[in-house]
Amino acid sequence: SMAPRKKLQGLVAATVTPMTPDGQINLSVIRQYVDYLVSKQNVKNIFVNGTTGEGLALSIQERKQLAEEWVRQGKDKLDHVIIHVGALSLPGSQELARHAAAIGASGIAVIAPFFFKPTSKDELLAFLREVASEAPAVPFYYYHIPPLTGVKIRVEELLDGIKEQIPTFQGVKFSDTDLLDLAQCINKNGGEEFVFLYGVDEQLLSALAIGANGAVGSTYNYLGQKTNMMLQAFAQHDLALARKYQFLTGEFLNFVIKLGFGVAQTKAVMTFVSGIPMGPPRLPLVKASEEFIAKAKAKLDMLQFTDCFSMWHVEVNGT
Amino acid sequence: SMAPRKKLQGLVAATVTPMTPDGQINLSVIRQYVDYLVSKQNVKNIFVNGTTGEGLALSIQERKQLAEEWVRQGKDKLDHVIIHVGALSLPGSQELARHAAAIGASGIAVIAPFFFKPTSKDELLAFLREVASEAPAVPFYYYHIPPLTGVKIRVEELLDGIKEQIPTFQGVKFSDTDLLDLAQCINKNGGEEFVFLYGVDEQLLSALAIGANGAVGSTYNYLGQKTNMMLQAFAQHDLALARKYQFLTGEFLNFVIKLGFGVAQTKAVMTFVSGIPMGPPRLPLVKASEEFIAKAKAKLDMLQFTDCFSMWHVEVNGT
Amino acid sequence: SMAPRKKLQGLVAATVTPMTPDGQINLSVIRQYVDYLVSKQNVKNIFVNGTTGEGLALSIQERKQLAEEWVRQGKDKLDHVIIHVGALSLPGSQELARHAAAIGASGIAVIAPFFFKPTSKDELLAFLREVASEAPAVPFYYYHIPPLTGVKIRVEELLDGIKEQIPTFQGVKFSDTDLLDLAQCINKNGGEEFVFLYGVDEQLLSALAIGANGAVGSTYNYLGQKTNMMLQAFAQHDLALARKYQFLTGEFLNFVIKLGFGVAQTKAVMTFVSGIPMGPPRLPLVKASEEFIAKAKAKLDMLQFTDCFSMWHVEVNGT
Amino acid sequence: SMAPRKKLQGLVAATVTPMTPDGQINLSVIRQYVDYLVSKQNVKNIFVNGTTGEGLALSIQERKQLAEEWVRQGKDKLDHVIIHVGALSLPGSQELARHAAAIGASGIAVIAPFFFKPTSKDELLAFLREVASEAPAVPFYYYHIPPLTGVKIRVEELLDGIKEQIPTFQGVKFSDTDLLDLAQCINKNGGEEFVFLYGVDEQLLSALAIGANGAVGSTYNYLGQKTNMMLQAFAQHDLALARKYQFLTGEFLNFVIKLGFGVAQTKAVMTFVSGIPMGPPRLPLVKASEEFIAKAKAKLDMLQFTDCFSMWHVEVNGT
Repeated sequence: SMAPRKKLQGLVAATVTPMTPDGQINLSVIRQYVDYLVSKQNVKNIFVNGTTGEGLALSIQERKQLAEEWVRQGKDKLDHVIIHVGALSLPGSQELARHAAAIGASGIAVIAPFFFKPTSKDELLAFLREVASEAPAVPFYYYHIPPLTGVKIRVEELLDGIKEQIPTFQGVKFSDTDLLDLAQCINKNGGEEFVFLYGVDEQLLSALAIGANGAVGSTYNYLGQKTNMMLQAFAQHDLALARKYQFLTGEFLNFVIKLGFGVAQTKAVMTFVSGIPMGPPRLPLVKASEEFIAKAKAKLDMLQFTDCFSMWHVEVNGT
Repeated sequence: SMAPRKKLQGLVAATVTPMTPDGQINLSVIRQYVDYLVSKQNVKNIFVNGTTGEGLALSIQERKQLAEEWVRQGKDKLDHVIIHVGALSLPGSQELARHAAAIGASGIAVIAPFFFKPTSKDELLAFLREVASEAPAVPFYYYHIPPLTGVKIRVEELLDGIKEQIPTFQGVKFSDTDLLDLAQCINKNGGEEFVFLYGVDEQLLSALAIGANGAVGSTYNYLGQKTNMMLQAFAQHDLALARKYQFLTGEFLNFVIKLGFGVAQTKAVMTFVSGIPMGPPRLPLVKASEEFIAKAKAKLDMLQFTDCFSMWHVEVNGT
Repeated sequence: SMAPRKKLQGLVAATVTPMTPDGQINLSVIRQYVDYLVSKQNVKNIFVNGTTGEGLALSIQERKQLAEEWVRQGKDKLDHVIIHVGALSLPGSQELARHAAAIGASGIAVIAPFFFKPTSKDELLAFLREVASEAPAVPFYYYHIPPLTGVKIRVEELLDGIKEQIPTFQGVKFSDTDLLDLAQCINKNGGEEFVFLYGVDEQLLSALAIGANGAVGSTYNYLGQKTNMMLQAFAQHDLALARKYQFLTGEFLNFVIKLGFGVAQTKAVMTFVSGIPMGPPRLPLVKASEEFIAKAKAKLDMLQFTDCFSMWHVEVNGT
Repeated sequence: SMAPRKKLQGLVAATVTPMTPDGQINLSVIRQYVDYLVSKQNVKNIFVNGTTGEGLALSIQERKQLAEEWVRQGKDKLDHVIIHVGALSLPGSQELARHAAAIGASGIAVIAPFFFKPTSKDELLAFLREVASEAPAVPFYYYHIPPLTGVKIRVEELLDGIKEQIPTFQGVKFSDTDLLDLAQCINKNGGEEFVFLYGVDEQLLSALAIGANGAVGSTYNYLGQKTNMMLQAFAQHDLALARKYQFLTGEFLNFVIKLGFGVAQTKAVMTFVSGIPMGPPRLPLVKASEEFIAKAKAKLDMLQFTDCFSMWHVEVNGT
């Protein structure tokens, strides 16, 4: 099994699921994808079959195949391969948890069920516990994303006594803008037992300011290197420089959000940035338009240039 | 196969999924359940594995087993057995559609996918079409329930040209309070090609007033007979009497909604009304409290009594 | 004072506020407006300074001037002139209530305050009571419109004991699609003490079916006559004919809603239908586009034609 | 007139409106309030008649009286007295703007109208412009608070060309958790023409991290001194210490929010912290319960103690 060499921190790319032109999962490019992340983006952790990975739009069988291939190709190259095993159906989620354990995943993550929604901390915890207990030796992460699930149970409440219910609990992918909740989590977690990975890429710096340990997101697939430089600047107390990098991601996202930006568009961006064919999304998502691709590419190119320039500018001034 | 003897209309019970005390599906009571619906409620159509049936919280395998048993037990007793085959995953939904066709279901229904949500009529239609085409000889119903899915694409728009895309399209389970949309559907459907079954039980009379053909809902499991009497009064142009029955359902639902009412509570009510053990719901739902059960039972008993009294009253006056 | 000759029922037009081209209130056409409503639409009740009347966008002084002019011009022509006196500020609302009493309004109505929102029945009732008590001889109506206010306190709860708190309480303008709540109100109101006027024009027939006493809405400004025919058909138990009229309103609203339909557009429609210049709306509303006006006019003309035809058809068949 | 001696920055207290026990505005304690803010909280800027000040629940006359008294008492003691003049009614808002100019306010602020909501940047801008132009020599601030108004027009879009429309435009009170929008505003504002004051107190540090210039909020009435120490720590690049202060505010707010926290409760807290009787809120708000007050007081006392301890701890370690 893939015993983590170090605690999960820094950047985690929420991987897209490569598909063939006719909409089947495409395992054949995953090796190349791993190498790209490591060599081009300096990103060594991945979050597989999550929102970006269209996990909930895949069959159980497809999710298993993908998990296996990512773990296989990540071996000796990646630090952490977290498999998202959340599902609306508890038995489905449990089956995926057992599978993730069997293939040696570094961790599993579970989204709150969102058709029937838990209405209290206890109901949510009961569901998570029943999944986590199927993989009793695998680090467990709760995937908190209320804008998509509508489940607004505060994480800081969920943490109370969570270790008794879920001994493998390790942390949270926190994808929300309620930074009071995140701050309370971090404050409670004085002993640094758990990790809090922020999931709203365009405001990561704000989460770092209050103590987030890292980030999980889709933009780290193609802006990982830049964001790593932001993390570095932040670690060196150079907030002005960190801000420049944050504004870069922000400007790109702000631009594409206005054009309509989701998983389909992320797959298109990743295709032109990495050169790896990520294919179309699965219905009800439909593939990005040529117009979107052209505009997004132009914007990204412009930002890279700007970025180089301002880097030079900063260095000159900084000397 | 179960060729419908007549067009789907009137009441359709959205069945709960019986479970054993330890949370496994309990096929053994389905025969009894069918007999109860026919003999005690005079309800001869069912909607299986829908919201009330916890369909989305079941595994694909469980859904198939349930569909099979309902079709088997419904043979020669029920008029229509509609199997809900909607799922977040297109391949999962397609697999269920093929299965429903193979076992001879009277119809299939599909909810709009709601994690990634279709943002236009075309995206929704594309998803539905890919499912429907897997069961090319089975009547297809769209299950419209925006309060749960967040997919607010208007049905009257969806109808435009739907037969070209989905030749098996037959109608809609319309579970929303936007009666303008429903009215437009009915208005467009002048030739009465399609059926519109209303899904908000507490305001069914309002939907009948604008021409709904029938209803699908959970209360028809235990208030089916009463609602049938409402349909009869309505058919006889006795709106005052129909209103009395509608107020009955309304008073019960109004009461239990304040206590917290969902599928878990419906299972409890059905257990005490029918005497058939429906068991607990599946997580994240948790079983109804004893307090709820006591209060709901008392309320229902009181309403039945009132109802008998006013029936007598009406008959006396009506003579 | 204008003592109502009969109980408020049937149609109530929610009047627009005529303005001059430069955005001042235009009292000079109100006389003509009253005559138009009575002679062309057969509508003899009005709801002044409500949502359609842009009441909350007017100054207290303007609201008083308008109330006075409507009451003056309505004398001996109209049955009921209801003045909406709701405001975010309690003193403002009280001032308007006193004024309405002084000028002899037939009734006052108050919307729930919606910046700071009441969170319980008691908080809402306390606010309403403090306004109503300033006009102790004037019938009081609660204006329930949760889609605009976000105040979802159920009316049926509000009714419990309301007469003790607000002796002048007379009824509700119910502008919501929660027909369970409305049905409960009507059910409780067995003695017919109160009136329930429905405020979602496109589904009035559905509210009539469960016992609504009438309607308040903007479309009765220009589709009043048609809706009166719907009321008549309904009263004569001819639901099929009533439905035709409901579909008429529905088809128009469905069409214009897609173009963008609000108070600004209602003013434009009323201008071309009545020939009375209603003027622009007040900021932040902006006047309807020429394109909207052309399309809305064409649609309305077409519907009138269709309608005449089917009327003829009905009469021929009905004879 | 009160010409600002320096650019608005740092903390701005959103003042509560003192009221007498019977609910009238209480001007008599405003002098004491000003002295308290300056001497005990080191806060020298105020935002009057905003949300915390119940501005929209006051009559125009009351708002003028309050504005006058705050400006009078703030003279020579405060740096900036910003008067919120927003209203649903454009003429009302304009009247308040003229008045604020006449009495020498340091600035005016306007909330987006929220009954009829502007649906585009242009509609919002047109409304703001018509108010601002009534006070052509007074700095103008837009008060952005989408959680209360529902107006989600992005500020970064609003900024484009705003100086041409509103020459007095000076900045934004940004009360939202969409930090991408705030970051874009700050990024665009490279030349530092405008100020961005953050309005979600519990996550101010996150806004500072991306370049916010200061803050407007209710907690600065009683946690101003502590928050000033956070600003100081942040300015000295001591993020760890700044975080401690942020957690302090967060822990208090997190605690009281669970008890139910709004303007009524803020008035109660301010009364026991400052010793100045702030009185009850106005309906539909109702005064805080004794139980709330006891719990909030205990929590705040505990935090102060903790805080003192950790300050000592920090100093010892820091030496």
